[in-house]
Amino acid sequence: MTTSTIEIDQLAINTIRTLSMDAVQEANSGHPGTPMALAPLTYSLWAKFLNYDPANPNWMGRDRFVLSCGHASMLLYSVLHLAEVSKVDADGNPIDGPAISLEDIRNFRQLVSPCAGHPEFGYAAGIETTTGPLGQGLGNSVGMAIAGKWLAATYDKPGYELFGFDTYAVCSDGDVMEGIGCEAASLAGHLKLSNLCWVYDDNEITIEGRTDLAFSEDVAGRFESLGWSVITVEDANDLGALEAAYAKFKSTTDKPTLIIVKSIIGFGAPNKQDTSSAHGSPLGDEEIKLTKENYGWDYDKFTVPDGVLEHFRSTVGKRGSDSYAEWTEKFSAYKSEFPELATQLEQMQANELPEGWESSLPEFPADAKGMASRASSGKVLNSVCGSIPWMIGGSADLAGSNKSNNDAPGAGDFLASDYSGKNFHFGIREHAMAAASNGMSLCGLRPYCATFFVFTDYLRPSLRLSSIMHQPVLYIMTHDSIGLGEDGPTHQPVEHLAACRSIPGVLVMRPADANEVSACYRAALSDKKRPSVLVLSRQNLPTLEAASTTDAIKGAYVLQDCDGTPDAILMATGSEVQICVEAAEKLTAAGKKVRVVSVPCWELFDEQSAEYRESVLPAAVTNRVACEAGIKMGWEKYLGAEGSFVGMDSFGASGPFEELYEKFGITPDAVAKAAS
Amino acid sequence: MTTSTIEIDQLAINTIRTLSMDAVQEANSGHPGTPMALAPLTYSLWAKFLNYDPANPNWMGRDRFVLSCGHASMLLYSVLHLAEVSKVDADGNPIDGPAISLEDIRNFRQLVSPCAGHPEFGYAAGIETTTGPLGQGLGNSVGMAIAGKWLAATYDKPGYELFGFDTYAVCSDGDVMEGIGCEAASLAGHLKLSNLCWVYDDNEITIEGRTDLAFSEDVAGRFESLGWSVITVEDANDLGALEAAYAKFKSTTDKPTLIIVKSIIGFGAPNKQDTSSAHGSPLGDEEIKLTKENYGWDYDKFTVPDGVLEHFRSTVGKRGSDSYAEWTEKFSAYKSEFPELATQLEQMQANELPEGWESSLPEFPADAKGMASRASSGKVLNSVCGSIPWMIGGSADLAGSNKSNNDAPGAGDFLASDYSGKNFHFGIREHAMAAASNGMSLCGLRPYCATFFVFTDYLRPSLRLSSIMHQPVLYIMTHDSIGLGEDGPTHQPVEHLAACRSIPGVLVMRPADANEVSACYRAALSDKKRPSVLVLSRQNLPTLEAASTTDAIKGAYVLQDCDGTPDAILMATGSEVQICVEAAEKLTAAGKKVRVVSVPCWELFDEQSAEYRESVLPAAVTNRVACEAGIKMGWEKYLGAEGSFVGMDSFGASGPFEELYEKFGITPDAVAKAAS
Repeated sequence: MTTSTIEIDQLAINTIRTLSMDAVQEANSGHPGTPMALAPLTYSLWAKFLNYDPANPNWMGRDRFVLSCGHASMLLYSVLHLAEVSKVDADGNPIDGPAISLEDIRNFRQLVSPCAGHPEFGYAAGIETTTGPLGQGLGNSVGMAIAGKWLAATYDKPGYELFGFDTYAVCSDGDVMEGIGCEAASLAGHLKLSNLCWVYDDNEITIEGRTDLAFSEDVAGRFESLGWSVITVEDANDLGALEAAYAKFKSTTDKPTLIIVKSIIGFGAPNKQDTSSAHGSPLGDEEIKLTKENYGWDYDKFTVPDGVLEHFRSTVGKRGSDSYAEWTEKFSAYKSEFPELATQLEQMQANELPEGWESSLPEFPADAKGMASRASSGKVLNSVCGSIPWMIGGSADLAGSNKSNNDAPGAGDFLASDYSGKNFHFGIREHAMAAASNGMSLCGLRPYCATFFVFTDYLRPSLRLSSIMHQPVLYIMTHDSIGLGEDGPTHQPVEHLAACRSIPGVLVMRPADANEVSACYRAALSDKKRPSVLVLSRQNLPTLEAASTTDAIKGAYVLQDCDGTPDAILMATGSEVQICVEAAEKLTAAGKKVRVVSVPCWELFDEQSAEYRESVLPAAVTNRVACEAGIKMGWEKYLGAEGSFVGMDSFGASGPFEELYEKFGITPDAVAKAAS
Repeated sequence: MTTSTIEIDQLAINTIRTLSMDAVQEANSGHPGTPMALAPLTYSLWAKFLNYDPANPNWMGRDRFVLSCGHASMLLYSVLHLAEVSKVDADGNPIDGPAISLEDIRNFRQLVSPCAGHPEFGYAAGIETTTGPLGQGLGNSVGMAIAGKWLAATYDKPGYELFGFDTYAVCSDGDVMEGIGCEAASLAGHLKLSNLCWVYDDNEITIEGRTDLAFSEDVAGRFESLGWSVITVEDANDLGALEAAYAKFKSTTDKPTLIIVKSIIGFGAPNKQDTSSAHGSPLGDEEIKLTKENYGWDYDKFTVPDGVLEHFRSTVGKRGSDSYAEWTEKFSAYKSEFPELATQLEQMQANELPEGWESSLPEFPADAKGMASRASSGKVLNSVCGSIPWMIGGSADLAGSNKSNNDAPGAGDFLASDYSGKNFHFGIREHAMAAASNGMSLCGLRPYCATFFVFTDYLRPSLRLSSIMHQPVLYIMTHDSIGLGEDGPTHQPVEHLAACRSIPGVLVMRPADANEVSACYRAALSDKKRPSVLVLSRQNLPTLEAASTTDAIKGAYVLQDCDGTPDAILMATGSEVQICVEAAEKLTAAGKKVRVVSVPCWELFDEQSAEYRESVLPAAVTNRVACEAGIKMGWEKYLGAEGSFVGMDSFGASGPFEELYEKFGITPDAVAKAAS
């Protein structure tokens, strides 16, 4: 390296550091220490390796950069600014202006700025995922690497390598301690994701003090046991060693890579470096002054010195733009040779589904015996997967129980030995499964994942992030109530419908029969912006004569009615709809006029017009009963002051499900009585 | 070993196997394969090593046996039956009769039987914890081992070793794959818990097929990296190797032990062993017949052959009863020498707190500036920890932010080098923290654990189990709303109050000021059967003149009132109470009669008499407004049909908290307008 190369390297690194320090100080809030420590490794990656075109930040073939330690957000904002990443429009296409301006950085952590406290997907181009809750970014990065492998195996053709992209994730102690990070690491090692590189900031500091207070394991040894290639860089400021580490990652073809970088938090701050006090608070004006002296930094705050932008332009900018041009040319030739595949990729990129996919949604004839909604879900899933080639997913070791397998000939298993498979074996790792699904979705796929409904608790932080990031991940959750029977209280969801409905922006759907299942798939897959949780029974449900595939997508509808104004309205979801139907028979026999309303999805119903809602639940009818094998919370909004509820108010029990329904009083008689 | 020893060993092992097969078949539901595989290691442990007195199953000094793979519940029920573990009364004292009778086993998975599908704590003596959700038992076992170390360091005296007990946990692939299991393993290794032994059933089978579909890591290598001693037993039927492994564990004094046992699921079933089909379904009558032939088993179903009960009596029974007698004698001498300490242990065992502990609850003078409720929580916590010596706990690396440190001189850190410390550094492992707290609570301690409120999502499965098991674990959850400000949406709880309230049997408390904090601690600690979640602010809250420490424990009370019937009732929790107070001022100035109700805990209020509830929220006053910086779900029950809600219906944003309250319209003006 020439002196001037070293100088510009150092100038760029110190620009990242000082922008970060200044922004945190200006906001009087934030985390300066980690950006200061990790500026060299981030710079080295962006300037020397990352295949990323700042002018086309949503290019499908780009390398992904994930900042899993989201609290170090200024590191990301600084580099996005210096690389001059372009703003994008609502469809993700580049438009004039920077994704992150200097003004945005000055307004770090203010409402007017896209530079939120933690990186928020959608706030600015270049933020590949929302991070902050530790370990999530690692799970996302595994999903992105999976997407890269699957896209390459499925769409690359000889002479057309379109999806050789790599995924990098920068992570902290918290990320590698969190259970989700452990699960993600184990899964990535198992799948031999050689396109995945984690860079671990080993600074030996946590919020409570030195890491050895709580964390003394041999991280390198652990990752080697998980099947990773591990490289240690002894000094975070050693650019040569960092470059060698990245180069080794690039040349490793049979496993993921962990680069452990020994760093000093708050590097250069004479009184705060290497202490917890550099982690989560502004350094203070005096310490910033001393730090800048240490760096030999003689500029006003928020200065990007001459030459730095040009340098980024001539490195990552030039490399990315050449690569993008080459890719685009290649894709254009690919398009003539493989028009169908190219169209699929364009649809994926535009967040669209193949035209006419809805025609694959099956309809089911009425059938008193019926089938479990997990079983009809399996049938519908297999149909729609056939018409949406990039709808892929799997279960956390419960595929048979969840009926979540894609049985199409050739769908196959996604394995280290065959990345073209569509069925994922996530292992008993619900949390990493959901986080990886978010990563897959962020790469344009339409992923689904499956487990028992009660275990939404195990993946809840990732479900929340599906919603925060507007990712339409499909959660196929079976065994949805005491109806699962003998497995008992630990496996019986009671509060989970309420808990899932409580998360803003999640469609929680509990279909009453096979046709409603089909309708719920239609609603879930049509929604480009919201995750859906399909809540499905273990036990058989009759396929109802009256269930409607068109009305069900309105969230609630009149399943069966009486002449004139009803004396009572009975409402239910899922398996309890049949209970209300039977209660209605009893009430009708006793001379009452009864309406039965099926409510597969609250969120969709609440979005309907006031007229429609009034037509289903007329204000004049105050005698209402809701029946659901879960807690009452939230049903009050449909019940009004005089309505009553038949359901659970405690955990369940272990026994045959018919006996459990009797024991907990969820019966046609109880509903009929409540309505009388 | 003599021939007859070998014969009785084998007879006992096959009794466990056949009881398990028969019970699953009779129930037509359950998991036979793992009990069949693990009968030898369970038998070996109970017959040769476990320090456990079946006649006194709640003896404080006993070794703990945790079946983390709870689906193998018949393994546990069989051994509890064969060891003739005694029934206990509601206080946990032994009474006549078996904890698990043969009749109970015949009724496996039926409502009449304590033999639930998965082991349920409290259903029968000898079930040390509720398991089933994978990994939880491992987390519990770490808490039990921690309790053992802490009790020994705190109460043992020269000549009086009272707490040398060991904790064993039997676990499966799922347990060691789950993130919580990974966190628990890392924590146990860090803390060098030499009193902890995990026995890992390495059967190479998961529900979806061979484990290599999803799990190919070097488990031994991983655990060695985590600081564990690892022993491999190549054949689950090799009693000599099993005994050598347990003996090696007993002699290891500086680290926890993992015994990896290579087993064959469904051992002995000619057509089903070593396949997934032996996992979760009855074997079928024909396969059972063939298996019994294989075992040389010629008895009717549900038979315990002559000699087996006697053999258990003469091994674990005799050893345990001698050990119990010795311990009791020792304790009696200890009691004369250290009466105060002995009393503490007796109170712990009886689930009581020291007399007069409530007098340590501080009161706070009214103060307009006030303090954050996390800060007043810190003060109250320090006071009560001073009067309850076995109240210990810590944070998931946020002690400074959670104000959860016990600052008493001598409280110290719980470290591998000093197990007498009362402050736990759980690391960035929320899930294992909560599961370990359950384990500590099951050993009689009163643990607390702390993190940001939004991260209740990370520990939710363990919180649910605190409630299922009636363990009064205290969850200190700070940074409770958009009031935390700049950290943004990922860190701002919005749905978490609803989500926590949705779990049956959890006290969710959101105090409005320092005195309500004190009241909430009183209510939480007085409750012997329910976990409490304290929801606390980051920002300052005024200490109100009117807040009541006595009324607050009723869950809701009139904070300030008007003359005569109110025109409006304003309700709120936590930081929003002050907003309602200000709204009331505005309304009063406009000539309205207004009542303000503070609602620190729904669950406690709902338990009050109808009279009290009517006195706080008179049915006649229908103009009601509730204000809470979370979602509306559930408030409907207090609002009635005409009430309105001021709160959140979306995720938050990143900015100074005062601006966020304005942005989301949670202001005195909005409340006053809603009430007008």
